[in-house]
Amino acid sequence: MRDSRIVRCTYYIESSIEPEKAAALLAGEQSSGTFLPVPGESERIRVRHAAHVTKIEKLGLRAPSLPSRATSEKVRAALATVEFPMENIGTDLATLQTTVAGNLFELGELYACRLQDIELPEDFINAHQGPAFGIAGTRKLLGGVQGALVGTIIKPNVGLSEDEFRLVVRELALASIDLIKDDELMTDPAYLPLERRVAVAMEEILAAREVTGHHTMYAFNITGDVAGLRRRHDLVVKAGGTCVMLNIPVMGLPALAMLREFSEVAIHGHRAGLAASMRHPGLGVDYKVWQQLARLAGADHLHASGLGSKFYETDEEVSANIRSLLTPLGRTEAVVPVLSSGQNVGTPAPTFQAIGSTDLMMLAGGGVAAHPDGPGAGVRSLRQAWDAAVEGTELRQVAAHYSNRGDTDLLHAVKKFVKDN
Amino acid sequence: MRDSRIVRCTYYIESSIEPEKAAALLAGEQSSGTFLPVPGESERIRVRHAAHVTKIEKLGLRAPSLPSRATSEKVRAALATVEFPMENIGTDLATLQTTVAGNLFELGELYACRLQDIELPEDFINAHQGPAFGIAGTRKLLGGVQGALVGTIIKPNVGLSEDEFRLVVRELALASIDLIKDDELMTDPAYLPLERRVAVAMEEILAAREVTGHHTMYAFNITGDVAGLRRRHDLVVKAGGTCVMLNIPVMGLPALAMLREFSEVAIHGHRAGLAASMRHPGLGVDYKVWQQLARLAGADHLHASGLGSKFYETDEEVSANIRSLLTPLGRTEAVVPVLSSGQNVGTPAPTFQAIGSTDLMMLAGGGVAAHPDGPGAGVRSLRQAWDAAVEGTELRQVAAHYSNRGDTDLLHAVKKFVKDN
Repeated sequence: MRDSRIVRCTYYIESSIEPEKAAALLAGEQSSGTFLPVPGESERIRVRHAAHVTKIEKLGLRAPSLPSRATSEKVRAALATVEFPMENIGTDLATLQTTVAGNLFELGELYACRLQDIELPEDFINAHQGPAFGIAGTRKLLGGVQGALVGTIIKPNVGLSEDEFRLVVRELALASIDLIKDDELMTDPAYLPLERRVAVAMEEILAAREVTGHHTMYAFNITGDVAGLRRRHDLVVKAGGTCVMLNIPVMGLPALAMLREFSEVAIHGHRAGLAASMRHPGLGVDYKVWQQLARLAGADHLHASGLGSKFYETDEEVSANIRSLLTPLGRTEAVVPVLSSGQNVGTPAPTFQAIGSTDLMMLAGGGVAAHPDGPGAGVRSLRQAWDAAVEGTELRQVAAHYSNRGDTDLLHAVKKFVKDN
Repeated sequence: MRDSRIVRCTYYIESSIEPEKAAALLAGEQSSGTFLPVPGESERIRVRHAAHVTKIEKLGLRAPSLPSRATSEKVRAALATVEFPMENIGTDLATLQTTVAGNLFELGELYACRLQDIELPEDFINAHQGPAFGIAGTRKLLGGVQGALVGTIIKPNVGLSEDEFRLVVRELALASIDLIKDDELMTDPAYLPLERRVAVAMEEILAAREVTGHHTMYAFNITGDVAGLRRRHDLVVKAGGTCVMLNIPVMGLPALAMLREFSEVAIHGHRAGLAASMRHPGLGVDYKVWQQLARLAGADHLHASGLGSKFYETDEEVSANIRSLLTPLGRTEAVVPVLSSGQNVGTPAPTFQAIGSTDLMMLAGGGVAAHPDGPGAGVRSLRQAWDAAVEGTELRQVAAHYSNRGDTDLLHAVKKFVKDN
């Protein structure tokens, strides 16, 4: 049962002073200043507004994770639970962020400070809309596709001319793919403006649908100036598009929440830049915290890296990311975990084993575009690999089975993309 | 001479592979994919859109700064200069951030990745308005105050009732202080809404001005939902306010740029949360990069920590922050460095010695509110300490001099706040 008036946070901290004192310092800095009393901090204010340290789990001595003004050879590590009165925060996301993940990272007394987990009160969660589409709405926009969703990224990231871009989209849309997305670097450049990209892509997608019957979603990257978000969103809607993409860490959660207010289409949430405040285990904010805020702000799809990716997180960490996305958050719609980087026919099996769900989207770059028999074969091979993963049959066995029946898509994909073990 | 078509970045990187290869990987990931060729990456695209590694300075072997999928006992450290074609980015701040500080932090091949410095082309700088007020405009709004600006933060951070708040503002405004600011935690809570805070503070400030003749600026924290920024800004303007405050890392640079478009008052830029992507020396973005982007986005005042503060940065690092703020950026107005945390009559001397300028704002919490003879004495003692710092006279000597003439403000401040050496 969530406490209706408390935001409960768990921090990993390191300090040269006793962890209890260090945590109290943090709690004071981020509320009414309990630990170091300030003039005017009345008993009333302390009782009603002070954040409280409710639990300390000591983890022993270790070398400091972060530099500080002072130096310390060994510091005391601990997990500290801090409870913030919701009254200090209200229901505003920016104020929440400032409170639980603001100045505290600067404290010289802390040699590590990481927000590991957050438990938001129902009143806070219920004040936010969450995803408008989520997994159910996205499947509906895709004409009712079942199973894991298969997508890809336009490559090269940048530099395509309008004609080159048209051919790439045509090929992918004709491959009956579920989602095509812009690279996060591709926004609204003069050499291929968003307006032209939207027009061209939607022409090709709607034309391909006449051939394949398949609804392909395109995540148009509308990252850019905040004032122009509406205009860029409207371009997409007017052309019949069903999805816009936002680089959330760059734009900020408040900009995402604003987009959610008026968006008529699904919001594909990219995490470019997130690792800057997440990768070091002694600093910043854990994925399982961040994803809650991004879901409340209204992202329908959220990037979570991918098993076997070229990114830093281990498969265990990526699995934890995905599981956190699949964990219910109040009454909000279920969000779509987006797996990317290094995804191919070899990744569905370990992914399904770790997650046990197909309510996700797998973005494969080379796995689609570089399939020896073309993107259509790439998409089919990925769907077959997902079916095999769900059934629990061995990939090479399934590939051989299809091949014996004259369908070599999976076999060729396995040969090209999956390393022999 | 800045190259008009190139964004030049310096990264600190660590890798198990050769630094040249690691830097090329980064450059490829963040442009057209040079290092790992992708289908459709034509010669034309490579020539026009690829980012190039133009310099590698090897720094030897060391233990990895960051965890990754793979592990490596020793990695190769280097400084890599990467040049991005401006054509990829255009003049958009969000696209710039995504390009120079986006997915690259995730690369598993890198065991450290930090954007140390950036050199923006004039065409990029000139496309942005920069500060509307800056130091000159702020001095003008303050009725022509010369020398270092003196400010303070409302304490306690949170929890004050309207009546308590009124008394705190009254006392500070009557002290002829230059700036009063909300704490970054104080936004628009139900128990003391921004609308009431603005009304009460401006009543008190305008009334105090009748008595003192001094113009006090109040930085009202309008951090919150993006859609409401305009409304909250307008509240301040309508009441005769001259400044709004934004927690920039939480709101995002694009939201700041949007505010700059319509703001009629100075923008006080807080950095709450910035340390999450700045404190670890092997990850994220250096202050001297971030401050350029925040200035281009339109911040008039920018927090830079303070010498002798309770925050993590050493005095050398804080001095470097302030110097970077004082470095001209194209033709933009000069921004106001804001020094905070642990500031008192002891800090002007080392600050002036390090910086050699009084074009800055010093926020003193206890140094004002907790002066034994009240906030008025606190403000006067800080101005006297700044005069002494600029003249190069010893603080205790100056305090004794004033005291002999019957003015004990500085003497009492020195006794209370400055530790004996």
